[in-house]
Amino acid sequence: MKTCSKERLEDKIVTFSKFGDTGKGGITRFSLSPAALEAREEFCKRCKALGMTIKTDDMANIYATLKGEEGLPAIMSGSHMDSVKQGGNYDGILGVLTALEVAETIVTEKIPHRHPITVVVWTNEEGARFEPAMMSSGVITGKFDKDKMLASKDKEGTTFKEALEASGYLGEEANRMKPEENMALVELHIEQGPVLEAEKKDIGVVEGVCGMINYEFTFIGQADHAGTTPMKYRKDALYAATKTIQYLHDELDKLDSKLVYTTGKISAHPNIHTIIPDEVKFTLDARHQDPEVIKQVLAIIKAIPEVIEKCEVSYEEAWSRKTVAYYPEYVDFVEKSAQEYGYSAMRMYSGPGHDAQFIADVIPTTMIFVPSVKGHSHCEKEFTPVEACLKGANVLLQTLLKIDQK
Amino acid sequence: MKTCSKERLEDKIVTFSKFGDTGKGGITRFSLSPAALEAREEFCKRCKALGMTIKTDDMANIYATLKGEEGLPAIMSGSHMDSVKQGGNYDGILGVLTALEVAETIVTEKIPHRHPITVVVWTNEEGARFEPAMMSSGVITGKFDKDKMLASKDKEGTTFKEALEASGYLGEEANRMKPEENMALVELHIEQGPVLEAEKKDIGVVEGVCGMINYEFTFIGQADHAGTTPMKYRKDALYAATKTIQYLHDELDKLDSKLVYTTGKISAHPNIHTIIPDEVKFTLDARHQDPEVIKQVLAIIKAIPEVIEKCEVSYEEAWSRKTVAYYPEYVDFVEKSAQEYGYSAMRMYSGPGHDAQFIADVIPTTMIFVPSVKGHSHCEKEFTPVEACLKGANVLLQTLLKIDQK
Repeated sequence: MKTCSKERLEDKIVTFSKFGDTGKGGITRFSLSPAALEAREEFCKRCKALGMTIKTDDMANIYATLKGEEGLPAIMSGSHMDSVKQGGNYDGILGVLTALEVAETIVTEKIPHRHPITVVVWTNEEGARFEPAMMSSGVITGKFDKDKMLASKDKEGTTFKEALEASGYLGEEANRMKPEENMALVELHIEQGPVLEAEKKDIGVVEGVCGMINYEFTFIGQADHAGTTPMKYRKDALYAATKTIQYLHDELDKLDSKLVYTTGKISAHPNIHTIIPDEVKFTLDARHQDPEVIKQVLAIIKAIPEVIEKCEVSYEEAWSRKTVAYYPEYVDFVEKSAQEYGYSAMRMYSGPGHDAQFIADVIPTTMIFVPSVKGHSHCEKEFTPVEACLKGANVLLQTLLKIDQK
Repeated sequence: MKTCSKERLEDKIVTFSKFGDTGKGGITRFSLSPAALEAREEFCKRCKALGMTIKTDDMANIYATLKGEEGLPAIMSGSHMDSVKQGGNYDGILGVLTALEVAETIVTEKIPHRHPITVVVWTNEEGARFEPAMMSSGVITGKFDKDKMLASKDKEGTTFKEALEASGYLGEEANRMKPEENMALVELHIEQGPVLEAEKKDIGVVEGVCGMINYEFTFIGQADHAGTTPMKYRKDALYAATKTIQYLHDELDKLDSKLVYTTGKISAHPNIHTIIPDEVKFTLDARHQDPEVIKQVLAIIKAIPEVIEKCEVSYEEAWSRKTVAYYPEYVDFVEKSAQEYGYSAMRMYSGPGHDAQFIADVIPTTMIFVPSVKGHSHCEKEFTPVEACLKGANVLLQTLLKIDQK
């Protein structure tokens, strides 16, 4: 069986880690920033050297295509090259570099294929400079209103439209990926979690993306002086919030063990050590692949009393996402490819969102996960050994070839 | 029995509420700000009209004195005229205005007195512009290092020294209040809490200021992705903090019912709804008049495990204050004066700090509290009806006269 080249893949990872290098093991490579444009230039240079043709669409998504038989739809693979602030060298970029390495292997090993192979780079997946995340895959699949996205501003007040126009990568809307011209998308990504490492698996066979809900809770009490207000007269919004967080833990822990939930954000007002808080807010993020479990979470939320510790309790859904199931045949191809190489693999759902979940609505799509050491992600400690990346690239190669032979 | 004038007192309250008026029922009158200097000017003008002589010391504390018999020590009364941001029209200023009204009553009613009567204004009690609070009473009683205080800067970078020099109120160090020249300080203040109102009492007979401790707790967990990290692998610093707040409530509630404790301030890092918090801090403020109860609080803190929910727990004392007992004879004078007017009164300890607690170290001191409607303070809703203020002024008048007749 053919395999990708560890040396070439390592060179790619090392080369791209220089674009936005923080000097501390990671990168800050905001979408369409100078560092991101350097990465795009290097990517296009390497694609052209392989004889690929390059197009960009009106969201500056890049499609680099290795020719196939005339008239057949293309097989796509890729991810994004932007990062969060002080992010790592693997999130997103590894999906682009492994797809590029697969293309390079196909070219250099002269591996026959009928369908065009397109390496794709989605613009602004992180949403770290311009909100929201997964902006460009969202626009071309009709999830987001393009005009609103173009008006999104970074901290300096630059709009996404201005950044797009200045980038040199603004192309035609006609160049957008289309269901009739593209038969598949396979996105390789780091797991961004500890499960593959803990379970000693080489490959995550991603069956879909977990549904999720995100709620914001608000507790209204009364701001009184810490030194003058007897306990019996108090309406302490932080204590009410504390009781609710404990309740959520107690009840949610009774549900399916695959449920993950997080109270990540909390704020208190006026947040002064000598004043009883009169307003506390916290968020709850809950994710599970089974919509029935998400319903159980909602029932637990709805059972929260309107008044806790004399404080008014309210909550609202900030946002939510339904479970996305990937294309079963391609999911099987990923699993089978791993088996053929003798790699250990496990089926799993993705907790985080990915561009692939939007594309999955219009084109048969799946994903491949490789392990994240200690589960670190979105930080400079993010790491996946090149040997583990190579296994992912090989599985990607075989999966694309299986799709090609359909 | 002689009484102060409601009309005159109301005029004083209304007049001084214009200096720093927020237009929303309160004031912002930072120490030595233009608004505070207007208030000082009006105060001095009124004192001079009563024939009082005015001195200021090296911290711009103002001493306005009504002459008494030669060679006798003065009886002082007063408070501060500065406020917090968007504070009320009573905290501090009412202690100055009632003392001024008492002086005016003595002058206009020709009430005989042997000792000089000094109305005092302490500079920068709130510490809202220049930290710390109770700065100038602290300097003249040796609690704070003067040079450090002079270097304290406001948000614009102006030092307290610069503000002092520009104020026109900078006087000689020799003018500081001295134990040999001052036999008493009686400070009237609003309660800043709900107890007098709830207990339907006109006057708080303040026996002292509660001892207090302030601790900051830190919980170190691990920041992981909300969507990828199974619950069993998590080190959630917010959950650990939540459990500790609950523990503190459970245990502290078993102690004396006069104990007040507050977890007023909380912060989480990175405070993003999709990331498990890796660092959470919160504060605990606990106050009680009996040092033994404070020791019990410390024992409860020390019983907190070093590891909670797999997170490292640490804490440190941010600051503390020992219980201050006021001068028993003068405390009795306050209680007796209230009785003589037929006002209801209760003995109590002050939760908040006041300039009087520093002065109490060097001069026999006590305080009088008047009720705060709904306990509001340090906000624009702060309110005490003029009738209730008048009762306080009358008790202050009688207390000073009792001290005078010692």
